[in-house]
Amino acid sequence: MKHRMKIILASASPRRKELLEQIGIPFEVLVSHVEEKVTSVRPGQVVEELSGQKAEAVLGLLEEGDALVIAADTVVALEGRILGKPADTENAVEMLRSLAGKTHQVYTGVTLLYRRGEETARKVFHEKTKVHFYPMTEEEIRSYAASGEPLDKAGAYGIQGIFARYVRGIEGDYNNVVGLPAGRLYQEAKEWLESEESGNF
Amino acid sequence: MKHRMKIILASASPRRKELLEQIGIPFEVLVSHVEEKVTSVRPGQVVEELSGQKAEAVLGLLEEGDALVIAADTVVALEGRILGKPADTENAVEMLRSLAGKTHQVYTGVTLLYRRGEETARKVFHEKTKVHFYPMTEEEIRSYAASGEPLDKAGAYGIQGIFARYVRGIEGDYNNVVGLPAGRLYQEAKEWLESEESGNF
Repeated sequence: MKHRMKIILASASPRRKELLEQIGIPFEVLVSHVEEKVTSVRPGQVVEELSGQKAEAVLGLLEEGDALVIAADTVVALEGRILGKPADTENAVEMLRSLAGKTHQVYTGVTLLYRRGEETARKVFHEKTKVHFYPMTEEEIRSYAASGEPLDKAGAYGIQGIFARYVRGIEGDYNNVVGLPAGRLYQEAKEWLESEESGNF
Repeated sequence: MKHRMKIILASASPRRKELLEQIGIPFEVLVSHVEEKVTSVRPGQVVEELSGQKAEAVLGLLEEGDALVIAADTVVALEGRILGKPADTENAVEMLRSLAGKTHQVYTGVTLLYRRGEETARKVFHEKTKVHFYPMTEEEIRSYAASGEPLDKAGAYGIQGIFARYVRGIEGDYNNVVGLPAGRLYQEAKEWLESEESGNF
């Protein structure tokens, strides 16, 4: 009997969508509003918790049937402090000023919820990537902040855009900084993707 | 007096073109056939030499006028051995088999040749990025090799495509693995870009 499992990305982020497409996983997007509740201050645990809440909310929306739900959350951490998305341009300037010339960490947490018939399973993990920035002049910071690019991005920068000018290097998965640890995600999901009989994998 | 400097990318690689666009540098592409001559076996020196030969050949084609020529060359090194582009699919399979589950190095050498009036200047550098691969099954290797993606790529893989599935992480500049160390390139070229009065920078 031919079998079809739905793969659901529980995120509206165009960057996560692109990364999942890049690694050849066919999926649909389904997003649910989540009241985010965080019990930890440790970045790795925070992103795991938040990805779990997103995944649960979306699984709750799904009708019966086999499904793999993929949810993720990303934060930037600098010297123990968590940076989310900037509130406005001035806030973006402050974040960029604090990151310039230094090394920070990007954490992306992922939750995979798998349901097949009566069987359910869950995997939760996070990946950490260190990012080294070149120094930036005040003019470079203000010009980038004014471009509007920082506003929907944790830490106020997008590594995959013009900001690559200021990135000296990283340690870890690059795609984790973009918003989804594509390598780890594929390796963790592989067993469930392969049990699928569609022949896509 | 308004001044206009030509910026020339001496490479036909679509990936280098995309990276230069990404960091907001306006340029034209001009490629010259080069008889590659290498005097070193050290990867960092090899890519510097080859990028220099490409840059010189293209500067030689340019008429009078101010110009910045950017040339690059990329190789993959595994345990002291240099891997270029695979000759065919079977060769790609061998390269991928040797890289799977291990760490290798990607070297990109860059030469910048700058000419402004009577003044000329040159900068040559290379960046090294370590790349860690997950183990791969024989089926995964053969399937990727058969996709044709490896054939125009040093080391037989493209980190920016579906191959991201097998990349555990890197140490260094990600764009250096794609073919151009965008961050270092921008930092090195900045002084010359800024002396330009077009207001693009």
